[in-house]
Amino acid sequence: MRAAYTEQLASLGHTLGDMAALAGASMEKATDALLQADLAVAEQVISEYDRMAELTRTAEEQAFALLALQAPVAGDLRQVVSTIQIVADVDRMGALALHVAKIARRRHPQHALPDQVNGYFAEMGRIAVALGRATQEVLETRDPERAATLHDEDEAMDDLHRHLFTLLMDRDWPYGVAAAVDVTLLGRFYERFADHAVEVGRRVIFLVTGSLPSPDPEDHLAGRT
Amino acid sequence: MRAAYTEQLASLGHTLGDMAALAGASMEKATDALLQADLAVAEQVISEYDRMAELTRTAEEQAFALLALQAPVAGDLRQVVSTIQIVADVDRMGALALHVAKIARRRHPQHALPDQVNGYFAEMGRIAVALGRATQEVLETRDPERAATLHDEDEAMDDLHRHLFTLLMDRDWPYGVAAAVDVTLLGRFYERFADHAVEVGRRVIFLVTGSLPSPDPEDHLAGRT
Repeated sequence: MRAAYTEQLASLGHTLGDMAALAGASMEKATDALLQADLAVAEQVISEYDRMAELTRTAEEQAFALLALQAPVAGDLRQVVSTIQIVADVDRMGALALHVAKIARRRHPQHALPDQVNGYFAEMGRIAVALGRATQEVLETRDPERAATLHDEDEAMDDLHRHLFTLLMDRDWPYGVAAAVDVTLLGRFYERFADHAVEVGRRVIFLVTGSLPSPDPEDHLAGRT
Repeated sequence: MRAAYTEQLASLGHTLGDMAALAGASMEKATDALLQADLAVAEQVISEYDRMAELTRTAEEQAFALLALQAPVAGDLRQVVSTIQIVADVDRMGALALHVAKIARRRHPQHALPDQVNGYFAEMGRIAVALGRATQEVLETRDPERAATLHDEDEAMDDLHRHLFTLLMDRDWPYGVAAAVDVTLLGRFYERFADHAVEVGRRVIFLVTGSLPSPDPEDHLAGRT
C-alpha cells in the first residue's frame, strides 16, 4: 500500500513538474513572439495550451485516484490536497503565456510593443522563464530553500513592473492609448505569472516545514499607491 | 458516520456560501467607491478582505477535516475535492473586489473613471453583484439549472467589456493614457470576477450531473481578435 502510494505520488509530482516546464517554455516562446512579432511562434504557444489543459486533467485525476485508492492520512493527505491547489496555479501560468501570445498574434504584423519598452519585456520574460524552471525544480525536489528563492525572482519582476508603470503614467508617453492598453495588460500577465509561481513555492514550503510563509502582497500593481 | 459527513459537508457549503456573499457585497461596495470616489467605502472593502482570507482558511480546514475524519469515497470524495477547487475561485472574486477598491483609493479625491465610462462600470458592477448572489445560491442549492444561468450573466459582462475596449481603442479617446490604464485594469478585474463565478458554476454542474460543460473561452479580452 505504502509503495503504491509513494509511486503514485511521485507520478503526480512528475505531472506537476511537466506542467511547470511547459508553462516556462510557453512563456519563453510567447516573449519571443511578442518581441519579434513572430506569428508562427505565437500560434505555437496558443496550440500548446491544449497540452497544458491535458496535463491539468491528468494531474487532477491522479490526485483524485490517490485519495480514492490510498486514502492517505495526516501529512500524506495534506500533500495531496496541496497538489490539487498547486495544479490550478501552474495551469494559470500556462494560460498567462497563452494570453501574451494572443496579444502578439492580434497585433501581427505590427509589434505590440513600442521599442522603448522592449527591454522591460525581454527582462520580464527572462525572469518568468527562470521562475518556470525554479517552479519545476521545487515541485520535483520539494526543497524549501529553493522554494524561498522564488520570492526574490518575484521581487525583481515587481520592480520591473513598477518601472514600466512609471513610464506609462508619465505625461510624455508618446505611443498613444492603444499601445498603453497592450502594455498594461502584458505587464499584468507577466506579474501574475510570477505571483502564481510564488504561490506554488509557499505551498511547498508549507508542506515540508508545516508553516506557511505570509502571503506576498500579491498584487503590486493593484496595490501600488 | 454518514450523519456526521452530511453535517460537515453542509457546514462547508455554508462557509462557501458566506464567501460568495462576501465577494458580491465587496464588489458592490467597491463599485460604489469607484463611481462616487468614496474613500471611506474603499477602505471598508480593503479591510473586509481579511474576513475573506479567514473564511478561505476555514473552508480549507473544513475540507481537510472532512477528508481526514470521514474518508469519503466516490461521489462524496469528488464533492470535497471540487470544494477545494471552488474555494480558490471564490477567494479570487474577493481579491478582485479588493483591487477595484484599491484603484478607487489611489485616485481619491479624483474619480478614477472619466464620466463617459461610468455607465459601463455601473452596469458591470450590477452584473458582478448578480453573479455573486447567483454563486452563493448555486453553492447552497447545488441546482445545476441555476448554475447554467451564470454563463448568461457572464456573456453580458463580456459584451460590456468588449464595448469598453472599442471605446478605449478609438483614436478619439480624449482622457489620456493614465485614465486608459485604470480603465483597462478595472475592466479586467470585473471580467475576471465573472469568469471565476462561471467556473464555480461549471464545477457544481459537474458535481451534480457528472458531465463538465466545455470551458468558457474565459478570457475574452486577451482573446479578442
